[in-house]
Formats: sequence, C-alpha cells, structure tokens
Amino acid sequence: MVERKIITAREEESLDIEVGKDLIKMNDRLAAQNLEILNKHGVIAVDVMGSVGAGKTALIESMVDRLKGRKRVAMIAGDVTTTIDADRVARHGVPSIQINTGKECHLDANMIRKAITELDLKALDLIFIENVGNLICPADYALGCQRRLVVVSVTEGEWMIVKHPLIFKSANVVAINKLDLATAMGLNVDKLAEDARTINPRILVARTSVKNGQGIDELLAHLGL
Amino acid sequence: MVERKIITAREEESLDIEVGKDLIKMNDRLAAQNLEILNKHGVIAVDVMGSVGAGKTALIESMVDRLKGRKRVAMIAGDVTTTIDADRVARHGVPSIQINTGKECHLDANMIRKAITELDLKALDLIFIENVGNLICPADYALGCQRRLVVVSVTEGEWMIVKHPLIFKSANVVAINKLDLATAMGLNVDKLAEDARTINPRILVARTSVKNGQGIDELLAHLGL
Repeated sequence: MVERKIITAREEESLDIEVGKDLIKMNDRLAAQNLEILNKHGVIAVDVMGSVGAGKTALIESMVDRLKGRKRVAMIAGDVTTTIDADRVARHGVPSIQINTGKECHLDANMIRKAITELDLKALDLIFIENVGNLICPADYALGCQRRLVVVSVTEGEWMIVKHPLIFKSANVVAINKLDLATAMGLNVDKLAEDARTINPRILVARTSVKNGQGIDELLAHLGL
Repeated sequence: MVERKIITAREEESLDIEVGKDLIKMNDRLAAQNLEILNKHGVIAVDVMGSVGAGKTALIESMVDRLKGRKRVAMIAGDVTTTIDADRVARHGVPSIQINTGKECHLDANMIRKAITELDLKALDLIFIENVGNLICPADYALGCQRRLVVVSVTEGEWMIVKHPLIFKSANVVAINKLDLATAMGLNVDKLAEDARTINPRILVARTSVKNGQGIDELLAHLGL
C-alpha cells in the first residue's frame, strides 16, 4: 500500500482555472480604472484581507478611531451573507457600504466600482475595504486599492503564512494581530514575521493588539496614513 | 452623503457563477460515483472542513490515535501549496496522500477520485479527507463522502457560524474546537452551538479540545466511528 503520495492539480485540467484567467484579466482592467478614479479624487483605499476571526473589523474600528479629525474615512465591507461588519464600523460614525457576495469568496473590482459610485469621493480621504474572510481567493482579485493589508492572528497556528504565499506576495503590509494572546498560544511571532519577509522581502510587518492598543500607530505608519 | 448601503452581487451578473453551476453539476456526478466506489468497499470517508488554524489536522491526529487497532485509516490532505498537514498525520503511521490544489480554494470530486485510486481500498475502513482551509468554497463541492464535519475554533470570534450558513447546512457534524481557550476568549459556546442548530436543525455538535482530550470520543460517536 502506498504510504506517502503527492498529487498536484494541473492547470490544464481545470476548466475553472481557464475561465478564471479571463475573469482575472477583465478584473485587472476594472481595477486599474478604479485606481484612476480614486487617485483623481485623492482618495487612498486599503484592501484589508485575512481569515475569518483574524480581527479585520476590530483593527479597522481601531484605526478609524485614531484617524478621527485627521482623515475623512469610509468603509466598504465584503461578506458572503451578513451585514455584521459594516454595522460595527458604521457605529463609529463613518459612511459604510456592505457588499454581500452571495457565494463568492472574494470581492472583485466590479463590486468595488459600484460601491465607490455610491460614495461621495470628494468628501473622503480614505476608504477601508474589508475583503471576504479567507487567505486564498482575494489574492488574485485586485480591487484598485493603493494599499493591501493582510491581517493574521496568532491564534491561527504557525503555518498560516507559509501555506498562503500568494496573498503575502501581493500585500504591502501584514498585521500580526491578537498579539496579547501570543504567549498563551505558545507562538513564535518573530518566526511569523520572518516567514512573511521570506515570501515578500518588501512587506512591512506590524505587531498589533486591538485589546491593548499595541502596534496600531505602527500599522497606520506602515500604511502611510 | 450616503451613510449605510447594502449591495448584493446578483447571480445573473456573474460569469463566474454561471460557469460555476455547470462545474458543480459535473462535480456532483463525480461525487456520486466516488460514494458508490467507497460504499462498495465498505469504506467511510469524512470530509473535514474549516478555516486555517481551526485545528483540523490536530483533530484528525487525535481521532487517528483513538481509532488505532479498531479501524484501518488513511488520510487525504488538501492544501493550496504545502505538504505540512499530510506529513503530520503520516507520522501517526497511516497512509496519506497530499493534494496540492494550486490556486483552488477547495478540493473537488475529481481530485478525490485520483486519490482513492492510489489507495488500496480493500485494506481500509476509513478515510479522513482534510479540505482546503476556509469556510466558503468547500461548501459547494461534494466529494462523495458519507460524512461532512466542520471544525470551528473558539478563537475565530462569535460570528464565524452565522456568516457561513451554506457550509453548516451541508454538514452532519460541527466540532467547536480549542474549547480550553473559550474562557480566555470570552466566548459563549452555547450561543455558537445554537447558531449551528438554527442553520441546520439536524447538525450534531461536539465540543472538543485536542489539548486536554475533551470531546474527542463524543466527536467520534457523532461521526458514527
């Protein structure tokens, strides 16, 4: 009996991937147009990616509070089905748009086009876009943001970065979040930071905890905000 | 300026979803054939789904240890890129097959067909299939397993179940894992169990901790193992 075996799904076998390539090209064109629209209005958009429960919404709330009076902020939240995240951020007094993707595991440039059309861009400096919660699908779909942030939590185990190279390659900044739990989780945070830099030598690493406020200013600095 | 808005991605707009429907039909046919092959050999397969870091691999290791001498077990592990999970389970002395999906965020019935062709089904009673780590994509793709288990961790926040109704609708059992951390996380586990049963009244709930062994026997009983 076979004891160890590796099977790799080949691209040429997958109809899914063939069609996917065309969709991604179309998406890239729309994303470039979104970027142009945002730049024309001097609005910075941040694509906030990460697994369910990594703390994306809590980090956005925390950044929104610190930027109060300095930046005019809006939020766009993507989720398969609920409005929980947009509701949370709206409570901080910023305009918020919820995009329900149905079955899609990522936001795309077309959804963002619709959302920014609803916003008064002249009255804004910054948009946080919370992507759908997982570390795989959002990697391929540019939204037209000037910055891409990946949020990982120390509760996700030691492999969450090495298992998802694509999303870290496409990001400018990674926040290693829930830092207050790192000791309880027995996790080596330096090793996680090193994993991210091995995949993407230009990535900036912030170590954050929404609970005690650690690293939020560093994160904002890394994002140029 | 608009303060709150909800945008829903409509199915008819999405090429992705149109093609997706055909793929899912094709996948369903293959899954039905897989089920037939497994049943013919008297092999039970368990599709183990859940986010990255929920503890899928650790739970499988724990179940494999308890079933030693009672069941002849193999493992199939899906991951976008690494062999970390299959390597871990292989150390427990069970045959293991790694499927690297490339960019795909889920296993599919065709990948499983290849994997079960590599295994000597006559020499097996049980196959644990660890799906790719996220709560969205695997929901739609039947693999031909007799059981579907979703693993969630108490570190994933209080919304991870209500945000992902589809995967809980398709599952027989949910394991609420890392129970030893529930108090530290300030999480109401009864509420999570209730959320799962609201979405799927027939779902069986196990409360598990690999660290202290709690609930593993209950989980095996729920899976009929």
